[in-house]
Amino acid sequence: MADLVPRCKLWLESDSGLVMSDYRLRLLALVAETGSLASAASAMHLSYRRAWGKIKELEANLGFPLVRSEVGGAGGGHTTLTDEGRQLVEAYDRFRRRVEAAVSQAFAEELAPLAQTGTPTA
Amino acid sequence: MADLVPRCKLWLESDSGLVMSDYRLRLLALVAETGSLASAASAMHLSYRRAWGKIKELEANLGFPLVRSEVGGAGGGHTTLTDEGRQLVEAYDRFRRRVEAAVSQAFAEELAPLAQTGTPTA
Repeated sequence: MADLVPRCKLWLESDSGLVMSDYRLRLLALVAETGSLASAASAMHLSYRRAWGKIKELEANLGFPLVRSEVGGAGGGHTTLTDEGRQLVEAYDRFRRRVEAAVSQAFAEELAPLAQTGTPTA
Repeated sequence: MADLVPRCKLWLESDSGLVMSDYRLRLLALVAETGSLASAASAMHLSYRRAWGKIKELEANLGFPLVRSEVGGAGGGHTTLTDEGRQLVEAYDRFRRRVEAAVSQAFAEELAPLAQTGTPTA
Protein backbone atom coordinates (compact mmCIF):
# COMPACT_ATOMS: atom_id res chain seq x y z
CA MET A 1 0.00 0.00 0.00
CA ALA A 2 3.05 2.24 -0.04
CA ASP A 3 2.10 4.10 -3.20
CA LEU A 4 -1.55 4.80 -2.35
CA VAL A 5 -2.64 8.39 -1.96
CA PRO A 6 -5.83 9.66 -0.33
CA ARG A 7 -8.06 11.88 -2.46
CA CYS A 8 -10.91 14.11 -1.37
CA LYS A 9 -13.55 16.02 -3.32
CA LEU A 10 -15.29 18.76 -1.37
CA TRP A 11 -18.39 20.80 -2.06
CA LEU A 12 -21.23 22.64 -0.36
CA GLU A 13 -24.85 21.67 -0.93
CA SER A 14 -28.22 23.20 -0.21
CA ASP A 15 -31.66 21.63 -0.65
CA SER A 16 -31.46 22.48 -4.34
CA GLY A 17 -28.10 20.74 -4.87
CA LEU A 18 -24.53 21.85 -5.50
CA VAL A 19 -23.73 25.37 -4.31
CA MET A 20 -19.97 25.73 -3.98
CA SER A 21 -17.12 23.59 -5.31
CA ASP A 22 -13.40 23.84 -5.99
CA TYR A 23 -14.34 24.59 -9.62
CA ARG A 24 -16.53 27.56 -8.70
CA LEU A 25 -13.95 28.76 -6.20
CA ARG A 26 -11.41 28.79 -9.02
CA LEU A 27 -13.73 30.88 -11.19
CA LEU A 28 -14.12 33.46 -8.40
CA ALA A 29 -10.39 33.45 -7.66
CA LEU A 30 -9.68 34.08 -11.36
CA VAL A 31 -12.11 37.02 -11.38
CA ALA A 32 -10.22 38.48 -8.41
CA GLU A 33 -6.88 37.86 -10.10
CA THR A 34 -7.69 39.17 -13.58
CA GLY A 35 -10.29 41.83 -12.74
CA SER A 36 -12.35 40.48 -15.63
CA LEU A 37 -15.12 37.91 -15.87
CA ALA A 38 -14.32 37.45 -19.58
CA SER A 39 -10.69 36.59 -18.78
CA ALA A 40 -11.70 34.29 -15.92
CA ALA A 41 -14.23 32.49 -18.15
CA SER A 42 -11.69 32.13 -20.94
CA ALA A 43 -9.05 30.68 -18.59
CA MET A 44 -11.56 27.99 -17.61
CA HIS A 45 -12.76 27.36 -21.20
CA LEU A 46 -16.24 28.60 -20.32
CA SER A 47 -18.37 30.98 -22.33
CA TYR A 48 -18.85 34.40 -20.73
CA ARG A 49 -22.58 33.68 -20.49
CA ARG A 50 -22.03 30.37 -18.70
CA ALA A 51 -19.52 31.84 -16.24
CA TRP A 52 -21.89 34.72 -15.51
CA GLY A 53 -24.73 32.21 -14.98
CA LYS A 54 -22.68 30.20 -12.49
CA ILE A 55 -21.85 33.29 -10.47
CA LYS A 56 -25.46 34.52 -10.44
CA GLU A 57 -26.66 31.06 -9.36
CA LEU A 58 -24.06 31.03 -6.60
CA GLU A 59 -25.16 34.50 -5.42
CA ALA A 60 -28.81 33.39 -5.36
CA ASN A 61 -27.96 30.30 -3.29
CA LEU A 62 -25.72 32.17 -0.88
CA GLY A 63 -27.95 35.19 -0.49
CA PHE A 64 -25.30 37.85 -1.07
CA PRO A 65 -23.53 39.46 -4.04
CA LEU A 66 -20.11 38.10 -4.97
CA VAL A 67 -19.06 40.32 -7.89
CA ARG A 68 -19.37 43.97 -8.85
CA SER A 69 -19.18 45.03 -12.50
CA GLU A 70 -18.18 48.38 -13.90
CA VAL A 71 -19.11 48.93 -17.54
CA GLY A 72 -16.99 50.93 -19.97
CA GLY A 73 -13.93 53.07 -19.28
CA ALA A 74 -10.54 52.55 -20.92
CA GLY A 75 -10.17 48.90 -21.93
CA GLY A 76 -13.85 48.10 -21.46
CA GLY A 77 -15.64 46.55 -18.47
CA HIS A 78 -14.12 45.48 -15.21
CA THR A 79 -15.37 42.93 -12.66
CA THR A 80 -14.17 42.68 -9.08
CA LEU A 81 -15.22 40.65 -6.06
CA THR A 82 -17.34 42.30 -3.39
CA ASP A 83 -16.01 42.24 0.18
CA GLU A 84 -18.28 39.25 0.84
CA GLY A 85 -17.07 37.53 -2.32
CA ARG A 86 -13.46 37.96 -1.20
CA GLN A 87 -14.34 36.67 2.28
CA LEU A 88 -16.03 33.62 0.78
CA VAL A 89 -13.04 32.81 -1.46
CA GLU A 90 -10.67 33.12 1.48
CA ALA A 91 -12.90 31.17 3.89
CA TYR A 92 -13.53 28.35 1.41
CA ASP A 93 -9.82 28.14 0.71
CA ARG A 94 -9.07 27.85 4.46
CA PHE A 95 -11.85 25.22 4.76
CA ARG A 96 -10.33 23.23 1.86
CA ARG A 97 -6.78 23.38 3.23
CA ARG A 98 -7.87 22.28 6.71
CA VAL A 99 -9.73 19.29 5.31
CA GLU A 100 -6.78 18.35 3.09
CA ALA A 101 -4.48 18.43 6.12
CA ALA A 102 -6.93 16.24 8.06
CA VAL A 103 -7.12 13.75 5.16
CA SER A 104 -3.32 13.45 5.04
CA GLN A 105 -3.03 13.01 8.80
CA ALA A 106 -5.89 10.50 9.13
CA PHE A 107 -4.49 8.51 6.19
CA ALA A 108 -0.98 8.46 7.71
CA GLU A 109 -2.29 7.34 11.09
CA GLU A 110 -5.06 4.91 10.13
CA LEU A 111 -4.25 3.44 6.72
CA ALA A 112 -0.53 3.76 6.08
CA PRO A 113 0.30 1.33 8.96
CA LEU A 114 -1.55 -1.44 7.06
CA ALA A 115 1.22 -1.32 4.44
CA GLN A 116 3.50 -2.94 7.00
CA THR A 117 1.08 -5.70 7.97
CA GLY A 118 0.11 -6.64 4.42
CA THR A 119 1.60 -9.83 3.03
CA PRO A 120 2.08 -9.72 -0.73
CA THR A 121 -0.14 -12.11 -2.68
CA ALA A 122 1.54 -14.61 -5.02
CA MET B 1 -25.98 30.37 4.08
CA ALA B 2 -27.73 28.83 7.10
CA ASP B 3 -28.96 25.75 5.24
CA LEU B 4 -25.73 24.85 3.46
CA VAL B 5 -24.09 21.54 4.29
CA PRO B 6 -20.52 20.48 3.51
CA ARG B 7 -20.09 17.27 1.51
CA CYS B 8 -16.96 15.21 1.02
CA LYS B 9 -16.18 12.28 -1.27
CA LEU B 10 -13.13 10.25 -0.28
CA TRP B 11 -11.14 7.61 -2.09
CA LEU B 12 -7.67 6.10 -2.34
CA GLU B 13 -5.72 6.15 -5.59
CA SER B 14 -2.63 4.47 -6.94
CA ASP B 15 -0.82 5.15 -10.22
CA SER B 16 -3.41 3.00 -11.97
CA GLY B 17 -6.41 4.94 -10.62
CA LEU B 18 -9.12 4.30 -8.04
CA VAL B 19 -8.25 1.69 -5.43
CA MET B 20 -10.58 2.13 -2.46
CA SER B 21 -13.83 4.04 -2.09
CA ASP B 22 -16.88 4.18 0.18
CA TYR B 23 -18.62 1.98 -2.37
CA ARG B 24 -15.97 -0.74 -2.21
CA LEU B 25 -15.83 -0.44 1.57
CA ARG B 26 -19.55 -1.14 1.65
CA LEU B 27 -19.11 -4.26 -0.48
CA LEU B 28 -16.47 -5.59 1.92
CA ALA B 29 -18.54 -4.67 4.97
CA LEU B 30 -21.53 -6.53 3.46
CA VAL B 31 -19.37 -9.62 2.90
CA ALA B 32 -18.36 -9.49 6.56
CA GLU B 33 -21.99 -8.99 7.63
CA THR B 34 -23.63 -11.64 5.46
CA GLY B 35 -20.80 -14.18 5.16
CA SER B 36 -21.60 -14.44 1.47
CA LEU B 37 -20.27 -12.65 -1.59
CA ALA B 38 -23.49 -13.51 -3.46
CA SER B 39 -25.60 -11.80 -0.77
CA ALA B 40 -23.26 -8.79 -0.63
CA ALA B 41 -23.36 -8.44 -4.43
CA SER B 42 -27.15 -8.74 -4.48
CA ALA B 43 -27.56 -6.10 -1.76
CA MET B 44 -25.58 -3.69 -3.97
CA HIS B 45 -27.36 -4.69 -7.20
CA LEU B 46 -24.11 -6.07 -8.63
CA SER B 47 -23.65 -9.37 -10.42
CA TYR B 48 -21.64 -11.94 -8.47
CA ARG B 49 -19.00 -11.84 -11.20
CA ARG B 50 -18.67 -8.05 -11.02
CA ALA B 51 -18.46 -8.02 -7.21
CA TRP B 52 -15.82 -10.77 -7.32
CA GLY B 53 -13.89 -8.76 -9.94
CA LYS B 54 -13.93 -5.63 -7.77
CA ILE B 55 -12.57 -7.52 -4.79
CA LYS B 56 -9.83 -9.25 -6.81
CA GLU B 57 -8.81 -5.90 -8.33
CA LEU B 58 -8.69 -4.39 -4.86
CA GLU B 59 -6.54 -7.26 -3.58
CA ALA B 60 -4.13 -6.86 -6.51
CA ASN B 61 -3.80 -3.11 -5.87
CA LEU B 62 -3.36 -3.51 -2.12
CA GLY B 63 -1.03 -6.49 -2.29
CA PHE B 64 -2.85 -8.67 0.24
CA PRO B 65 -5.91 -10.98 0.29
CA LEU B 66 -9.16 -9.51 1.59
CA VAL B 67 -11.55 -12.46 1.43
CA ARG B 68 -11.41 -16.20 2.02
CA SER B 69 -13.93 -18.52 0.36
CA GLU B 70 -15.08 -21.95 1.51
CA VAL B 71 -16.89 -23.97 -1.11
CA GLY B 72 -19.76 -26.36 -0.32
CA GLY B 73 -21.05 -27.54 3.07
CA ALA B 74 -24.63 -27.09 4.25
CA GLY B 75 -26.20 -24.10 2.50
CA GLY B 76 -23.42 -23.84 -0.12
CA GLY B 77 -20.33 -21.59 -0.17
CA HIS B 78 -19.29 -19.09 2.45
CA THR B 79 -17.05 -16.03 2.12
CA THR B 80 -15.40 -14.24 5.03
CA LEU B 81 -12.90 -11.41 5.34
CA THR B 82 -9.29 -12.24 6.09
CA ASP B 83 -7.72 -10.60 9.15
CA GLU B 84 -6.17 -8.04 6.82
CA GLY B 85 -9.50 -7.47 5.11
CA ARG B 86 -11.16 -6.80 8.44
CA GLN B 87 -8.32 -4.48 9.46
CA LEU B 88 -8.70 -2.56 6.19
CA VAL B 89 -12.46 -2.16 6.61
CA GLU B 90 -12.02 -0.92 10.18
CA ALA B 91 -9.09 1.37 9.31
CA TYR B 92 -10.84 2.90 6.29
CA ASP B 93 -13.94 3.46 8.39
CA ARG B 94 -11.90 5.27 11.07
CA PHE B 95 -10.19 7.30 8.30
CA ARG B 96 -13.60 8.27 6.84
CA ARG B 97 -15.07 9.24 10.23
CA ARG B 98 -12.06 11.37 11.14
CA VAL B 99 -12.24 13.24 7.83
CA GLU B 100 -16.00 13.75 8.21
CA ALA B 101 -15.46 15.20 11.69
CA ALA B 102 -12.77 17.53 10.31
CA VAL B 103 -15.07 18.65 7.48
CA SER B 104 -17.85 19.52 9.95
CA GLN B 105 -15.50 21.39 12.24
CA ALA B 106 -13.71 23.33 9.50
CA PHE B 107 -17.07 24.25 7.94
CA ALA B 108 -18.45 25.45 11.29
CA GLU B 109 -15.37 27.56 12.00
CA GLU B 110 -14.52 28.93 8.55
CA LEU B 111 -17.71 29.12 6.49
CA ALA B 112 -20.70 29.18 8.84
CA PRO B 113 -19.67 32.63 10.23
CA LEU B 114 -20.19 34.11 6.73
CA ALA B 115 -23.92 33.45 7.13
CA GLN B 116 -24.00 36.31 9.64
CA THR B 117 -22.08 38.78 7.48
CA GLY B 118 -24.06 38.11 4.30
CA THR B 119 -26.59 40.74 3.28
CA PRO B 120 -29.55 39.28 1.37
CA THR B 121 -29.76 40.34 -2.27
CA ALA B 122 -32.96 41.97 -3.48
